[in-house]
Amino acid sequence: MSLTPTPADKFTFGLWTVGWQARDPFGDPTRGALDPVRTVNELAARGAYGVTFHDDDLIPFGSDEGARRTHIDRFKKALADTGMKVPMATTNLFSHPVFKDGAFTSNDKDIRRYAIRKVMKNIELAVELGAKTYVCWGGREGAESDGAKDGYVALDRFREAFNTLGEFVTDNGYDIKFAIEPKPNEPRGDIFLPTIGHALAFIYTLDRPELVGLNPEVGHEQMAGLNFVHGIAQALWQKKLYHIDLNGQHGPKYDQDLVFGHGDLKSAFFLVDLLERYKYDGPKHFDYKPARTEDDKGVWESASANMRTYLALKERAAAFRADPRVIEAMKASNIPGLNESTLGAGETWRDLAKDSFDVEAAGARGYGYELVDQLALEHLMGVKA
Amino acid sequence: MSLTPTPADKFTFGLWTVGWQARDPFGDPTRGALDPVRTVNELAARGAYGVTFHDDDLIPFGSDEGARRTHIDRFKKALADTGMKVPMATTNLFSHPVFKDGAFTSNDKDIRRYAIRKVMKNIELAVELGAKTYVCWGGREGAESDGAKDGYVALDRFREAFNTLGEFVTDNGYDIKFAIEPKPNEPRGDIFLPTIGHALAFIYTLDRPELVGLNPEVGHEQMAGLNFVHGIAQALWQKKLYHIDLNGQHGPKYDQDLVFGHGDLKSAFFLVDLLERYKYDGPKHFDYKPARTEDDKGVWESASANMRTYLALKERAAAFRADPRVIEAMKASNIPGLNESTLGAGETWRDLAKDSFDVEAAGARGYGYELVDQLALEHLMGVKA
Amino acid sequence: MSLTPTPADKFTFGLWTVGWQARDPFGDPTRGALDPVRTVNELAARGAYGVTFHDDDLIPFGSDEGARRTHIDRFKKALADTGMKVPMATTNLFSHPVFKDGAFTSNDKDIRRYAIRKVMKNIELAVELGAKTYVCWGGREGAESDGAKDGYVALDRFREAFNTLGEFVTDNGYDIKFAIEPKPNEPRGDIFLPTIGHALAFIYTLDRPELVGLNPEVGHEQMAGLNFVHGIAQALWQKKLYHIDLNGQHGPKYDQDLVFGHGDLKSAFFLVDLLERYKYDGPKHFDYKPARTEDDKGVWESASANMRTYLALKERAAAFRADPRVIEAMKASNIPGLNESTLGAGETWRDLAKDSFDVEAAGARGYGYELVDQLALEHLMGVKA
Amino acid sequence: MSLTPTPADKFTFGLWTVGWQARDPFGDPTRGALDPVRTVNELAARGAYGVTFHDDDLIPFGSDEGARRTHIDRFKKALADTGMKVPMATTNLFSHPVFKDGAFTSNDKDIRRYAIRKVMKNIELAVELGAKTYVCWGGREGAESDGAKDGYVALDRFREAFNTLGEFVTDNGYDIKFAIEPKPNEPRGDIFLPTIGHALAFIYTLDRPELVGLNPEVGHEQMAGLNFVHGIAQALWQKKLYHIDLNGQHGPKYDQDLVFGHGDLKSAFFLVDLLERYKYDGPKHFDYKPARTEDDKGVWESASANMRTYLALKERAAAFRADPRVIEAMKASNIPGLNESTLGAGETWRDLAKDSFDVEAAGARGYGYELVDQLALEHLMGVKA
Repeated sequence: MSLTPTPADKFTFGLWTVGWQARDPFGDPTRGALDPVRTVNELAARGAYGVTFHDDDLIPFGSDEGARRTHIDRFKKALADTGMKVPMATTNLFSHPVFKDGAFTSNDKDIRRYAIRKVMKNIELAVELGAKTYVCWGGREGAESDGAKDGYVALDRFREAFNTLGEFVTDNGYDIKFAIEPKPNEPRGDIFLPTIGHALAFIYTLDRPELVGLNPEVGHEQMAGLNFVHGIAQALWQKKLYHIDLNGQHGPKYDQDLVFGHGDLKSAFFLVDLLERYKYDGPKHFDYKPARTEDDKGVWESASANMRTYLALKERAAAFRADPRVIEAMKASNIPGLNESTLGAGETWRDLAKDSFDVEAAGARGYGYELVDQLALEHLMGVKA
Repeated sequence: MSLTPTPADKFTFGLWTVGWQARDPFGDPTRGALDPVRTVNELAARGAYGVTFHDDDLIPFGSDEGARRTHIDRFKKALADTGMKVPMATTNLFSHPVFKDGAFTSNDKDIRRYAIRKVMKNIELAVELGAKTYVCWGGREGAESDGAKDGYVALDRFREAFNTLGEFVTDNGYDIKFAIEPKPNEPRGDIFLPTIGHALAFIYTLDRPELVGLNPEVGHEQMAGLNFVHGIAQALWQKKLYHIDLNGQHGPKYDQDLVFGHGDLKSAFFLVDLLERYKYDGPKHFDYKPARTEDDKGVWESASANMRTYLALKERAAAFRADPRVIEAMKASNIPGLNESTLGAGETWRDLAKDSFDVEAAGARGYGYELVDQLALEHLMGVKA
Repeated sequence: MSLTPTPADKFTFGLWTVGWQARDPFGDPTRGALDPVRTVNELAARGAYGVTFHDDDLIPFGSDEGARRTHIDRFKKALADTGMKVPMATTNLFSHPVFKDGAFTSNDKDIRRYAIRKVMKNIELAVELGAKTYVCWGGREGAESDGAKDGYVALDRFREAFNTLGEFVTDNGYDIKFAIEPKPNEPRGDIFLPTIGHALAFIYTLDRPELVGLNPEVGHEQMAGLNFVHGIAQALWQKKLYHIDLNGQHGPKYDQDLVFGHGDLKSAFFLVDLLERYKYDGPKHFDYKPARTEDDKGVWESASANMRTYLALKERAAAFRADPRVIEAMKASNIPGLNESTLGAGETWRDLAKDSFDVEAAGARGYGYELVDQLALEHLMGVKA
Repeated sequence: MSLTPTPADKFTFGLWTVGWQARDPFGDPTRGALDPVRTVNELAARGAYGVTFHDDDLIPFGSDEGARRTHIDRFKKALADTGMKVPMATTNLFSHPVFKDGAFTSNDKDIRRYAIRKVMKNIELAVELGAKTYVCWGGREGAESDGAKDGYVALDRFREAFNTLGEFVTDNGYDIKFAIEPKPNEPRGDIFLPTIGHALAFIYTLDRPELVGLNPEVGHEQMAGLNFVHGIAQALWQKKLYHIDLNGQHGPKYDQDLVFGHGDLKSAFFLVDLLERYKYDGPKHFDYKPARTEDDKGVWESASANMRTYLALKERAAAFRADPRVIEAMKASNIPGLNESTLGAGETWRDLAKDSFDVEAAGARGYGYELVDQLALEHLMGVKA
């Protein structure tokens, strides 16, 4: 088993992940700032494919144009030196107090306009750097009280923002698509478009739905106790899995951003299995935070851990699918039967209405799912037959 | 404050709600079977507008055609005698062992066909009884293990089922629409289309999306820790709130089906506020279970409790919106500012790109949401100013 | 209904509550620092009884002895000027990076010793200020990985810390007791002694259990989906409710620290009912955070909201208990029957073994709890009969 | 790796586990009744050590003495034939309607007395069969509404029941101890003594605390989002881990009773690691339910799966602890430093008060926990270095 990543694996990291200074709601930073150039070099040396960023990760908020350009140029040089890519970028619409009531859904029209402008400006940089995906996480679009924000009207403004941005990239001929990142709560009590489903449904209301997809994150769905594998299956099925954020989480609690696999390992196994079977070919983006207990050494070890885990799971999932015992067990469970259309070619409800059927006999059969699950577990654990 | 319901309030109950015999996973029934005719009479006497049913609630599973007709005729007579309506019906696709692996997404094609046939048969009865909404709760469409069921392929079959049913009602000219009822889990480990969002997104993939909407249930969203008021706002906004199931729940745990308001009362207040402000005019359907501790007397008292709570909340929400202090506080919070388009008439992103803006000044203002929330709380509690 | 608090109500606030600058995991502060002297004055003007503090709230970390004394003297003068009390104090063992791996359970003996020393120093100040309760929240005592910290050995060190502190206050003759504040997680993935129960059990292993009780917080138990009213009942029953933190939370998610009552209102009603019935006479301490959207005005409005809500609930709970309909309904539910001993005077298991009993008859009765619950709800809402 | 269980592994199963007929809240049974004699034979053939039972599992509720004795004799013969043991027994105080309001905490004194009597009768059988542990799960001791049951008074009755039972076994000289099984909710909205902690604290209030310990269940703690490994560490530390229920659960939702390891696998790994390191030598009792989709074949395959998973995890945990890389990493993390007393021999708080300490230097070190966690993950997965 080779756990050594290469750029062909398409592993990417946000600047803000390894760069997290480990300030949390109850504690001061435990690590210093990371120079983005160093991040590019360190990740390249560990086999990553690329990096991603919020505007303010790369260019400190409030920089003037000269400083901005200097930051960009240094970063581009590091990319060129290492061959690292920037497949995705995003906007910080949550740190500054101006966004405390939301950005696209702020009550204040001027703030909404400023937020869209901030996105447009960074899209231009994203395009300059070759990004094909632009992630939108509406972390402040929400409320703590249902009295404070009309959730119906907020969706009007949310839609208006995406329609405006769609027009912006279209008018400019930018080859970039949007990926909405849902999250149920934190930092707001409740966030609008809280899950893969809600964000996916919203997309169909846009002027240019073809420009907008999803960037689901493992931990965000698991914060709602939802099955991430099912969510990704639906996103793939509706052809909207534009990007993915891999990390770990232990169920409904604060957003942990653990290393991928360090939360629900069995779910991570089936996730990799799904992504590989359905040939997801976008970046595998790790949106995690090295624990606050770690120093610089621990930061880079944790970065590598994400990639090692993915590669280990990929090999184990492939072995699971190839094992004749598994194939046999799945056949016994009639799992392939789900692939068959319910109506035969040319059939309608009229044909189906005429069937006869022995309901008791059909109810008596067993499905053998426990065996399938145990085989999966043993493959995940590398147990020899 | 009048808490006496009348049919004009459009309160409805499922036969299976008051009729629940109180068998739970760890206990035997504590109540006997309720005759649907008695249910109709008792609910009518308490001011309800109508009743709803699963096929097997009204006609015991396996009844022959003669027995079936007898059950239907007795029921219709009770409806006629009382003036009670049947605005909705649904299918039991979960109790019988034949559905243990799912109905529309069973691995077995014959079971899938049987499930669709069972639905079609009960739609005919629903139409005969005047129902305009047909609820589909896919309680068994899911899995305990991600190895046991391919969530991608399952959606193909799910779509096929709805497309077939859409064709069935269209071909027959039935004036009835479907309402999908999402639930995250229980009785399956994870259920497909687990939330309002996922089900809403799915609808856009159907052949006849105009025939399909939602029947969200308070407790089902709250089992995922999601904000039900936000979910309903999105369903209304996407014009898909075809029906609603009101009850109570205490967050992520088993499905409690408490009396409406007996769970998260503040959320119930804002839900009624939302439904009334956006003039939801469908039935207010209580999908609750009288506690297992109750006898027949307690069953009917609990039925009334649902309606009383709704009426009390409706009055309190109206008073909240009408209170000049609230109007003033909302103005101070700039809540009406969210109604304004972000782009003025004729504006495009180009106009917005030219704005200048004092970000620090805008970041400094306070929103006063704590005051709005406290005013809501005090209105909910009927505290005099 | 008088919702105007007075010192007799014994409402207290932590300096860190109104003083929270609204930095969260995704955002910068939105409010400036609050001078503790101003906090004392503002709270006194609103009818509070007292304030509480972490050492670092009052005396910035790293202050020299001169600066420390200046901070203390100014604070004491404000207390004297206003009559405000300091019934409780606590230690910040979580903000500084030195505590990132824990304080009493840090792997590093020197850090553990430093932590105990930091507590001792602030206990001396607490005693000087007249505090009778010293709260210990072990926010960093925990882990993100079960491999990183041996939870068994950690309890040895946790116990050693409390035994040492118990000896310290005993040797010095300080009239102060400890109150452990449990929390399940955040900022650590899992925190040791995560609930009221775990902390309560731990106390019995100490050298001086009589010196140690609990400071439970509404939101902390609700983050685990636990019933706070039940938890407080057990704490009272085991005579260990030394202090209480009142706030609001919406179930398992990040620690929200909402205004009291702004989370689960019905639970807040029954909590006040319990505290008043069992004559809890310690401070009612609000450990909440004014929302990040608020400015200074909103901070003080939210402070008042906590007290108003408590007073409103107190009146409503009293009316509930006094209502003849409620008394009658409780009698019908045989609720008073629980007060009777199961064994009569002088009886043993031998007597009970001889009983005969009609199990079916006893199983047939209804308890009428739905009615009791609805009456509670209507009292909470102030609905007139 | 040998995954073939033997009686020396001390694996046990409840009759009600493999015997579950798969009735759930929304569905009818999918399997027939299992004869306890067959269960003994099948489990013995698969390498189990013993079986456990509720009174009503073995002897149908309402059997007369003759039928009772016949059931017992057949069962004893099967035990004798196979060498299977009965290390534990328990009472069904939850299925019959008589217990709908609770058993030890029912409002009705006669029901409380009946419940104690039912327990005493089955303790006699347990003793006859050689059981040393008597589990008490108070599944119905709780409430849906805080108005319906006084949680303070309920604890008086709960204590009285355990004191009476303690007297009963003492007076009779029975060599058996009680193990309380906590659960947060389901089938009641909230259950008293909801977690390991609450039950553990309660024990200290009893007349004979030495007779009462715990029977924690994986899923029950995880339903509250609590770390089961931490809970078991505390139970071991307080010397109260008398028995353990192993199974799987996916966080806060209904009680899933999955096969051990089929829920949170990483937690299962660290649990086995803890039990083996601290030499827990009681039965490893699987309290799981074969999925409702399974037929008889699947039932027995799932039974074996529990044991295979435990054995696989045991080997992996041992390898983890023995790996020099792990030992080195733990040393780098200063994990052994936690074993050292905080106070040296003869030291008191006075010595500690005199220390000087470089807080910034101590705050700067990294702990390397991410590496430890990744090594654990890779051992769990059997990844070769």
